[in-house]
Amino acid sequence: MYGAGDVRVESVPDPAIVEPTDAILRVTRACVCGSDLWPYKTLERAERGQRMGHEAIGVVEAVGAGVRTLKKGDLAVMPFAFSDGTCVFCHEGLHTSCLHGGFFGPAVGEGAQAEALRIPQADGTLVALPVAEDDALMGSLLTLSDVMGTGHHAAVVAKVGPGKIAAVVGDGAVGLCGVIAAKRLGAEQIILLGRHADRIALAREFGAPDVVSERGGEAVDRVRELTGGLGAHSVLECVGLDQSMHTAVEIARPGGAVGRVGVPQDEAIPASLPAFLGNVTIAGGPAPVRAYIEELLPDVLDGTIEPGRVFDRVVGLDEVPDGYRAMNERESIKVMVQP
Amino acid sequence: MYGAGDVRVESVPDPAIVEPTDAILRVTRACVCGSDLWPYKTLERAERGQRMGHEAIGVVEAVGAGVRTLKKGDLAVMPFAFSDGTCVFCHEGLHTSCLHGGFFGPAVGEGAQAEALRIPQADGTLVALPVAEDDALMGSLLTLSDVMGTGHHAAVVAKVGPGKIAAVVGDGAVGLCGVIAAKRLGAEQIILLGRHADRIALAREFGAPDVVSERGGEAVDRVRELTGGLGAHSVLECVGLDQSMHTAVEIARPGGAVGRVGVPQDEAIPASLPAFLGNVTIAGGPAPVRAYIEELLPDVLDGTIEPGRVFDRVVGLDEVPDGYRAMNERESIKVMVQP
Repeated sequence: MYGAGDVRVESVPDPAIVEPTDAILRVTRACVCGSDLWPYKTLERAERGQRMGHEAIGVVEAVGAGVRTLKKGDLAVMPFAFSDGTCVFCHEGLHTSCLHGGFFGPAVGEGAQAEALRIPQADGTLVALPVAEDDALMGSLLTLSDVMGTGHHAAVVAKVGPGKIAAVVGDGAVGLCGVIAAKRLGAEQIILLGRHADRIALAREFGAPDVVSERGGEAVDRVRELTGGLGAHSVLECVGLDQSMHTAVEIARPGGAVGRVGVPQDEAIPASLPAFLGNVTIAGGPAPVRAYIEELLPDVLDGTIEPGRVFDRVVGLDEVPDGYRAMNERESIKVMVQP
Repeated sequence: MYGAGDVRVESVPDPAIVEPTDAILRVTRACVCGSDLWPYKTLERAERGQRMGHEAIGVVEAVGAGVRTLKKGDLAVMPFAFSDGTCVFCHEGLHTSCLHGGFFGPAVGEGAQAEALRIPQADGTLVALPVAEDDALMGSLLTLSDVMGTGHHAAVVAKVGPGKIAAVVGDGAVGLCGVIAAKRLGAEQIILLGRHADRIALAREFGAPDVVSERGGEAVDRVRELTGGLGAHSVLECVGLDQSMHTAVEIARPGGAVGRVGVPQDEAIPASLPAFLGNVTIAGGPAPVRAYIEELLPDVLDGTIEPGRVFDRVVGLDEVPDGYRAMNERESIKVMVQP
């Protein structure tokens, strides 16, 4: 990506093992993330492009001398952050704060919207999958790289559980996975705040019969009507804008929690006093999806959850720029890349 | 209070039972709260004064026909919010969000810096005390009305527990009670961020040997030095200003929590992105002190905790204006009022 709206497909040198803990992953499936759309809208034009993409499944092509748990030929899913699996934060399940970790994509110069990429801390990062590389579940497995784990994180930190009312702000792929997660964790009622017919239809199938398409104060009023006037116990904020966060706080029930996983686009969290007066907890951040893969994988493998249904378009590498456009114009919910 | 810096002592009609659930409390001890200092600094001048004070112990002088658990002559402590004790939020332990409740002081027109006041929802609100009205523990018992319960709330929502590192931002009476609470809940290390020698000395006796008197980035660096570079698991924000909240977020360890009980003076919570990237939870609000009295009372009665030591000045009703001045000028930590 060279700037807002400017995604190019270029040949770059093949990735190589740099550290003994590295592996090389040949990408069999990748995707475009809602968070990739922020730079797609705003990135300043530069001489040098940034390598994009942080979600993939692929085949291990080579491993460094220090890699013990993976071997050439393994099919593996890659979380959007790499982590060593051994530091204090990894042990606490917060792999996104790994002392020797980082985020794939521009920051580390290893993008997953590619034929292959270098995986640092391969033992801690990659999770081998017990399926073939063309398995029919590939879409759902790919969501374990980010969106399903991220929706699950929002639900976990928003304290969704049996008997609780959950509200999901945002009908993007993460919001839809948030609906799946809330249902899976036993929410009694799930309300989706969204405006796009295709996404709403999917959310209904995933378990959110109540949909609120109003915005601002009207959305708050509607959610209150749907919740006996009290608000939702758990609010999953899956957008990251000031307005959506404001709404998230205001639809939370006193003593409730907002789990925010939309990358915040503003310097401050709005609605400080309403959150304070209602003792509403604000939690969340980049999801430690590595920590969640073991928990979610069985439900994907046996078909209990089908997060892969968020993919409604498949493109080759050459069509990635059009994939960005399609997602940005809301023509597509989420684009899968098949190199 | 007629405006910033303008506190007057005036005769008003005696309070009377209005609802059958009311009681009349003759105040034997009250106090000035750190939160009273916000209007003391900023309240716009008005023709009509506001009744101040929301913390008291007193003797029940009369009860409405519907009051069942209290009788004339009982000594009782009054939380800063009244609550019916029966609604859904009271059952959840969040009495400050009671559906039939409210906050004492200007909002409800019943101030505790007075000879007597009307207590709505007396059965749900007042807690009878098993001591005489001149008991030596009166100071510590009075803190159950607000500051001790508020410091405890900060510690609870910041998830203080055995083995945890707690940092307390602010050395006012609530911050000092936060130190007591963190110690009581088993924190392994307690760091106080404060600048006043008398308060620091008291914090050290309460269990916070580490004191950071720097501000801003330097304070953050010092806390990191004291915590092996990682930050504090639990941060108790006991001020309410933008700068203190910023510091609170930045000294939190990834995955940690900030419990905020200082009434926020700004419209937004700062440091949104740092909190997000570190998955730092921001929780807190007005403390449901009513919910905590049963838990804290035994420790006060047997002397395990001595929050009453935050009182370093006692005034009569006529001297209340000077009590405000003394607290505002940091001449006094907390002023007790003995009508």
